[in-house]
Amino acid sequence: MNSISFIFAVHNHQPIGNFDFVFEEVYQKSYKPFLDVVEEFPDVKVTQHYTGILIDWLKSHHPEFILRLKKLVNNGQVELLTGAYYEAILPVIPPHDRVSQIEKLTKNIIDVFDYTPKGMWLAERVWEQPVVKEIVQAGVQFLPIDEAHFKYAGVREEGLYGYYTTEEEGYVLKIFPGSKKLRYTIPFAPVEETIGWLNSKATEMGNRIAVFADDGEKLGAWPQTYEHVYTNGWLRNFFQALTENSRWIRSIHFSDAIKDIKPVGRVYLPTASYPEMLTWALPVDSVLEFEEFENILKSHQLDKFDTFVRGGYWRNFLAKYPEANWLHKKMLRVSNKIRAIEQNGVDVFEAKNHLMAGQCNDAYWHGVFGGLYLPNLRYPVYNNLIKAECLIDKSKPNLKITDFDCDGKNEILYESPLINIYIKPEAGGAIREIDFKEKAVNLIDIVSRREEASHKKLSSTKEEYLQSFLVYDRYQRACLVDHFFGGDVTVEKFLVNDYEELGDFVNQNYQYNIKQSGKKTSIKLERVGSVKEGDSRKNIKIVKNISLKNTNSDIQIDYQIKNLEQAPVKLRFGVEFNFGLMAGDADDRYYKVEGVSLRDKRLKSVGCVPDIKNISLIDEWQGLEIGIETTIQADFWRCPIETVSRSEAGIEKLYQSSTVMPVWNLGITGEWQATIFLKIRSL
Amino acid sequence: MNSISFIFAVHNHQPIGNFDFVFEEVYQKSYKPFLDVVEEFPDVKVTQHYTGILIDWLKSHHPEFILRLKKLVNNGQVELLTGAYYEAILPVIPPHDRVSQIEKLTKNIIDVFDYTPKGMWLAERVWEQPVVKEIVQAGVQFLPIDEAHFKYAGVREEGLYGYYTTEEEGYVLKIFPGSKKLRYTIPFAPVEETIGWLNSKATEMGNRIAVFADDGEKLGAWPQTYEHVYTNGWLRNFFQALTENSRWIRSIHFSDAIKDIKPVGRVYLPTASYPEMLTWALPVDSVLEFEEFENILKSHQLDKFDTFVRGGYWRNFLAKYPEANWLHKKMLRVSNKIRAIEQNGVDVFEAKNHLMAGQCNDAYWHGVFGGLYLPNLRYPVYNNLIKAECLIDKSKPNLKITDFDCDGKNEILYESPLINIYIKPEAGGAIREIDFKEKAVNLIDIVSRREEASHKKLSSTKEEYLQSFLVYDRYQRACLVDHFFGGDVTVEKFLVNDYEELGDFVNQNYQYNIKQSGKKTSIKLERVGSVKEGDSRKNIKIVKNISLKNTNSDIQIDYQIKNLEQAPVKLRFGVEFNFGLMAGDADDRYYKVEGVSLRDKRLKSVGCVPDIKNISLIDEWQGLEIGIETTIQADFWRCPIETVSRSEAGIEKLYQSSTVMPVWNLGITGEWQATIFLKIRSL
Repeated sequence: MNSISFIFAVHNHQPIGNFDFVFEEVYQKSYKPFLDVVEEFPDVKVTQHYTGILIDWLKSHHPEFILRLKKLVNNGQVELLTGAYYEAILPVIPPHDRVSQIEKLTKNIIDVFDYTPKGMWLAERVWEQPVVKEIVQAGVQFLPIDEAHFKYAGVREEGLYGYYTTEEEGYVLKIFPGSKKLRYTIPFAPVEETIGWLNSKATEMGNRIAVFADDGEKLGAWPQTYEHVYTNGWLRNFFQALTENSRWIRSIHFSDAIKDIKPVGRVYLPTASYPEMLTWALPVDSVLEFEEFENILKSHQLDKFDTFVRGGYWRNFLAKYPEANWLHKKMLRVSNKIRAIEQNGVDVFEAKNHLMAGQCNDAYWHGVFGGLYLPNLRYPVYNNLIKAECLIDKSKPNLKITDFDCDGKNEILYESPLINIYIKPEAGGAIREIDFKEKAVNLIDIVSRREEASHKKLSSTKEEYLQSFLVYDRYQRACLVDHFFGGDVTVEKFLVNDYEELGDFVNQNYQYNIKQSGKKTSIKLERVGSVKEGDSRKNIKIVKNISLKNTNSDIQIDYQIKNLEQAPVKLRFGVEFNFGLMAGDADDRYYKVEGVSLRDKRLKSVGCVPDIKNISLIDEWQGLEIGIETTIQADFWRCPIETVSRSEAGIEKLYQSSTVMPVWNLGITGEWQATIFLKIRSL
Repeated sequence: MNSISFIFAVHNHQPIGNFDFVFEEVYQKSYKPFLDVVEEFPDVKVTQHYTGILIDWLKSHHPEFILRLKKLVNNGQVELLTGAYYEAILPVIPPHDRVSQIEKLTKNIIDVFDYTPKGMWLAERVWEQPVVKEIVQAGVQFLPIDEAHFKYAGVREEGLYGYYTTEEEGYVLKIFPGSKKLRYTIPFAPVEETIGWLNSKATEMGNRIAVFADDGEKLGAWPQTYEHVYTNGWLRNFFQALTENSRWIRSIHFSDAIKDIKPVGRVYLPTASYPEMLTWALPVDSVLEFEEFENILKSHQLDKFDTFVRGGYWRNFLAKYPEANWLHKKMLRVSNKIRAIEQNGVDVFEAKNHLMAGQCNDAYWHGVFGGLYLPNLRYPVYNNLIKAECLIDKSKPNLKITDFDCDGKNEILYESPLINIYIKPEAGGAIREIDFKEKAVNLIDIVSRREEASHKKLSSTKEEYLQSFLVYDRYQRACLVDHFFGGDVTVEKFLVNDYEELGDFVNQNYQYNIKQSGKKTSIKLERVGSVKEGDSRKNIKIVKNISLKNTNSDIQIDYQIKNLEQAPVKLRFGVEFNFGLMAGDADDRYYKVEGVSLRDKRLKSVGCVPDIKNISLIDEWQGLEIGIETTIQADFWRCPIETVSRSEAGIEKLYQSSTVMPVWNLGITGEWQATIFLKIRSL
């Protein structure tokens, strides 16, 4: 009689900082009802992975669930997998953090379930061969991954029913290809289709293994799946069928397989993730080309060659989205700081935990699921990274000139116990990050508006309305962006990029010069450029001197514009600020003008307040006030930056930041001076 | 006027241990005449890479060449690149060795040329992102690589004319895509085609860079190229054209580019090498499928989508060829041993140099150029690795049970100052490696016969004759392979695999038990199996006890066959030995029978000497005698194992090993015993 072994593995995860109500909804629709069914079918062996984030949440919100799961684990029905505690993309975090992430979850599983996991779940199945070393060092013996990875290595269909050994520097790991077919039939096809397919793969020798390994949330929490999987009984029927066919479908765990069945052979896997992810990681134009190619292959019945066809490389999310790169480099910087003091024997347990939470993958990329565009997913990541810094940066300010973002040019990093200021001299001398330590928040955590492949496919009426929001930024949103406008430019035109930039300062190189004396640090940025006036260009020089003190978190910027021509020059000058405060349309986030709170002027509002000297952004939720004061009256423009991106629920518009800009109408003969104070306060 | 920058870079390399006459021939046909032309055109800037192996050879054989080159380097016409001294594939050697390889070549270039290289050549352009870290740690700022790598990352054609920044853990490297078009036109197309193409890529802004980066040997040393490139003056004409068009073709070095031109952007590259290499790394059946796919794409004019089409992963040469894996794991083992004592402060300079020489890539893989099949390329690699061991393994024997080859099962490693013996219990209890330390040679350095994609494409008459040699081994060639034959099997039938294996011992699992007492180590291997007799199978047990002494390199194997049945059993039993002595058909390599040298019985000879007790393989070139003695007379079979593989010159047959096998006709009631002595001596 033909037979086959079958492994049923689900991965359960929620991003760090996700809303409680989201956790609870997924719990009720997926995690809980799944376990109900598992308990009913004691002969069906199940493998489960819960990230550390989720175990933490379950422990505090549903301890009864933990007890039920523990019973199933201890009686041998459920095999638990470990993994990165905070579901970090292993290849892009430093090697020592890889080990820490896995060891932390393993320890937690031992503590909570009195059970030592032998295998792991690889976050987003983002594989690079070198991570094998740290995975094995962390005590892991095996993991499941997509069959796609194996096909990219040249493994053919008949080689996909078993497991392989692989190694890095002699560290040996066992890896299981997870079936693509099963990812589609479970739970979306009738039960018989899965059973029939298993039957078609069963053999006389019976030494084949079929592996289902996929997200647990697709069983109940994905749109429309709850009704199908639970109300209509798909999962019960499936487990019933497994039980009835147990003579030839051996329900096993991964650890049974490596004990009882020989490996198919040896293999090394190229950099890969699941195929959809590799497409999302391509540059926008290439995404469309790739989709065109895939369609052609299908129409020519050439998709059987899919082994040789693949998209990009996960890490190019860092090239595609400078904001993802920035976040990644911030994470590296914090990791290196912790590592440095850890080697000196300092206890970094708490800081390291924040660092690891800050490595949670969801905010680092964008696909259908990736959350780079979601401020509420980026916030907890920056929040944790800055909290880690707060724990370790306890002495006086540190000034560092370094290529922080790894673009080949140096940034200026001012890091103090109160505030961090990261400046990019060659990109307009702008400030790209302001970390207000008291609240552990990066105030310039913003994703700029850029083209997405999904923008070319807006179709439904609801989506077509978004067309008008498809405005792409010419530069990355930041603070201290120096603009020159013609007289006809309004904030409304500015918002939709319908204006001409008359100066050549935005995104251009500024020279810098740094002075530190006593408790004061001053960073002078200057550039000789020009401004268009009619058909000619007038040479001017901008000097902006950023002053910082040890004693508070105020930032003083002394602006000086020098007219380098003989004749007077007329200028309309604006200094752009951007602050990302997560909700543009909430009643606890609004503007304050000249000391007066204007609750109806929410952070999403567009407008101009003429001839004032100060404006504030109030965020009652965080308990935060960001004030901009000038010594010379200006027209203060304000508008929201909103991106359009794809999610599971379709295309959506997301508030990223509020732009605030004092604009001056100037006629300069010699030079003009003004000082801007940026005052960040807890409420 | 449109203009473009042009970088002309060549990479020169010869494998470690290559024959002097090969070095000299390539020198005369390529390295020397190339420099002659460079000297004639002082305005043409040239970039060159010479591996450490080649610099060493040039220093001792052509010091005048070194002086000429030094002059060109010092006057700024030639930019030299560093790289791995012994042209190791960086991703597959341990990270600390990566740094050592590069630093060694850099130091050598500084010493010899009074010049500090800033860029490097990446061996076989085998890229994995993590190597960036050690490359930068070794002081390298940039490197050229194929445009294919960039296309796999999703970079489109217009993005290929410049350089990118990339990073690993914050270590920043600049990388240049080398043009595929130029790899084809230089030197194979008329000069005007290259100039015309450069013209088509030149722009008004003039900030594009076109990079040619390829093997120097294709300029003169590849078949037919000398006449074309030098006799017919292709290179002179090309350099003349570059000189004449210098107004718009700026001949520059890589280091000029990173100084004067901004990077195109940021990129991360997936695991890749040049496209041909990725095809060779696929399993055999997949190679043919890939070629089919490529042809279909071409015929459908879909090859413009080549960005998304690629072959396998370099590291799978280690899965495709167990011998490459074995060599790789030997290298890892030696590296780890050195690393361990280095950390204790022991001076390992010389041992480390041998290790690094043993990392030279050529013997680790097989394509058109790869030399895994070539005994003369594998020999120096094992030779260097064993020399390194000789320097560090100076104490008494060490016995280690470890998964040496990383297949999930343990091997038994006996390592002494005189000899190493590596045994695979689960693969027939066979010996897979015997290192005779006095000569620093692995006597079982053999590649078994297996199917190659090239075998399916034998076409010319010369090649068709090779059909008869396309015999594929059922198991990996080794020593102590326990066979049972029927009475009709001859050595000639054995040679072509035209026999039935009556026992179930070959490649099956043996239990093991190890005893060490005083200066003696004994490794007992045993298996209960069966032998086919007519239509039934008879149960028997083989015990083979391997005895080794501290004091010499003799290996004693006590064989015991137990008949587990009541009735007597008739057996024809053979113990197979294999030794790879590099030349099967040389008059200094022959057999000696019962003490009598038989110079006409070369190592390639096929035959059977009946009823003798000992036979030796003599290798006068190495000064080596390998003797096999038995206590009970046997028929001694002998035959050569020859592989069929592809080289630049076409398909070729290569001698891998001489098989020697005592065969006994036995009738056993209780048990049978015999002892075999393996005596390895220097002549």
